[in-house]
Amino acid sequence: MKIHNFSAGPSILPKDVIDKASGAVKELDNSGLSLIEISHRSKAFISIMEEACELALKHTNLNNKGYKALFLQGGASQQFLMCAYNLLDNKAGYVNTGTWSTKAIKEAKLFGDVIEIASSKENNFNYIPKGYDIPSDLDYLHLTTNNTIFGTQYKEIPKTTVPLVADMSSDIFSRKFDYSKFDLFYAGAQKNMGPAGTTLVIIKEALLGKVSRRIPSILDYTVQIKGGSMFNTPPVFAVYTSLLTLRWIEEKGGIEVIGEKNSLKANRLYNEVDRNPMFKGFASEESRSQMNVTFNLVDAELTDTFDAMCNDNGISGLKGHRSVGGYRASIYNALSIESVEKLINCMQLLEQKK
Amino acid sequence: MKIHNFSAGPSILPKDVIDKASGAVKELDNSGLSLIEISHRSKAFISIMEEACELALKHTNLNNKGYKALFLQGGASQQFLMCAYNLLDNKAGYVNTGTWSTKAIKEAKLFGDVIEIASSKENNFNYIPKGYDIPSDLDYLHLTTNNTIFGTQYKEIPKTTVPLVADMSSDIFSRKFDYSKFDLFYAGAQKNMGPAGTTLVIIKEALLGKVSRRIPSILDYTVQIKGGSMFNTPPVFAVYTSLLTLRWIEEKGGIEVIGEKNSLKANRLYNEVDRNPMFKGFASEESRSQMNVTFNLVDAELTDTFDAMCNDNGISGLKGHRSVGGYRASIYNALSIESVEKLINCMQLLEQKK
Repeated sequence: MKIHNFSAGPSILPKDVIDKASGAVKELDNSGLSLIEISHRSKAFISIMEEACELALKHTNLNNKGYKALFLQGGASQQFLMCAYNLLDNKAGYVNTGTWSTKAIKEAKLFGDVIEIASSKENNFNYIPKGYDIPSDLDYLHLTTNNTIFGTQYKEIPKTTVPLVADMSSDIFSRKFDYSKFDLFYAGAQKNMGPAGTTLVIIKEALLGKVSRRIPSILDYTVQIKGGSMFNTPPVFAVYTSLLTLRWIEEKGGIEVIGEKNSLKANRLYNEVDRNPMFKGFASEESRSQMNVTFNLVDAELTDTFDAMCNDNGISGLKGHRSVGGYRASIYNALSIESVEKLINCMQLLEQKK
Repeated sequence: MKIHNFSAGPSILPKDVIDKASGAVKELDNSGLSLIEISHRSKAFISIMEEACELALKHTNLNNKGYKALFLQGGASQQFLMCAYNLLDNKAGYVNTGTWSTKAIKEAKLFGDVIEIASSKENNFNYIPKGYDIPSDLDYLHLTTNNTIFGTQYKEIPKTTVPLVADMSSDIFSRKFDYSKFDLFYAGAQKNMGPAGTTLVIIKEALLGKVSRRIPSILDYTVQIKGGSMFNTPPVFAVYTSLLTLRWIEEKGGIEVIGEKNSLKANRLYNEVDRNPMFKGFASEESRSQMNVTFNLVDAELTDTFDAMCNDNGISGLKGHRSVGGYRASIYNALSIESVEKLINCMQLLEQKK
């Protein structure tokens, strides 16, 4: 039976990427060696790293605009720490849109004053705040562009004169977007880019060198840029598989085309959530994420029935996060419209059965 | 042609491990999903992580002795930082045996007084210092048990009453060893354990909680222990492949048996280095590493000839580090005695040709 993988992350990747990654672990490009046995200083791997950085900048339309792409380790959680370590000298603003923003705020507080500019906590983070004032003397403003757990996503980026930093772990490369509004953004690979184990950081170089504290080498963006993401041994497999996905995005026509497909998938599923009387959506309508669709059963007693239906139809990874309960359908780039339709079928089956 | 992979790291892994890792990227245990598409909170992955930790403790004979095993990200370089962040309150001692020790010292200096207890720098790190005094008031003493670049290795661990910390990146699981002498040791996976992208840390829990500073969550061993190495998304592929190697070690009879095989390989190669008038060893005899055999040509003008011979015989990754020049044969656990013999043949071929 085909498995429809709605997992929030690590999550579905294109089948072609999976096959090529598996092949490269066996043998990289007829080299007689496995991808994971070669030196990271070999020509083969340096070329992999360079192409991955180049494609990441190309897809975000930031080539030749003063930005650098880095493939680091430690996930977005390490970036919560690194962006504060490198950029927070006096005070920073954070918009709190959920669990990950809250964690980012916690780490930043070790390094300076942190102002919570806005928050949707009072409503269990079911919307993206709007219409707040942003002080002009912040070292930076930090956003989480998509909130995996709550299923919310920024549609517009707030206007500000201060540097803009964003955690884009769960929606990078998923839609057409003016990435040049951001001075620094980062994303754990394990949603739309690759396997867990590497984190893409794209940073405007002019942003660096402004804090007075001494930064440990591995956490220092300047050191990482100088080393071309190879200050120390990079996570070879995760970088290579990310490159395969970045190539796949290219082959599919780039993020604009992918973004349109993602809109279609999300619209179909939200339409069903709104139409089907058995379900209700969690996120407020104007903040709905195109990546993570959160919804609950109107009658929680039907949980076992619906879970069994999903299971019988090969639908996997649909359980909502404990903060929200119910269901979360993660419909990342690699998930097909057919999988969304399979889920819609299950939802309609429940309605008919009732 | 079979490639004989003498790369210093990332480096050779058992063929069986490579094949199984490749297979799991395609599909994990008939689950219908790739290893890299499943949630790290799934039963399947939690069991992988638990077994990997358990086997790491078993192979080091540290089960039920107050130690925890962690699989983190960031390589040994991140551990240079973490061990100082977590343990250095007042002053620490470091023995400087090469490039990696020097880097560890540099990072530790951000957090307290660092005393270089001994160093072999004056002789380009070609030996492991002995017979030094260790102050009794150190927060810890830090060693690098094997020095990949220079080809030196501790045979005996200095006696001390202070906590002992070690970077074992290039010789963990390679020999019978009293690991209980150490309070904390760590190893980047990419030599004897797996692909680049995860770092094993084994730590005595009683060592923690003694510094006064606030530690960022991701760098805090206590937080990482509490999260079972899953404070944030772990590097799933690297952990799984490390588990495969830990199982392979078990199947081969454990590290005692593997250590004997490693001795045999190293002895054969050092014997040839000593016997063959075309070559001279770099590391001093009593400090010679069983993992990285460093040697130079007596007549550097034969470099191109010897390189071509190696190349013609499928010998790969033999180039020495620029700090030493010449050659470095990394003969990790997975390298067969046949590969060592192939290299010896090449060395003898050069002698005959002359």
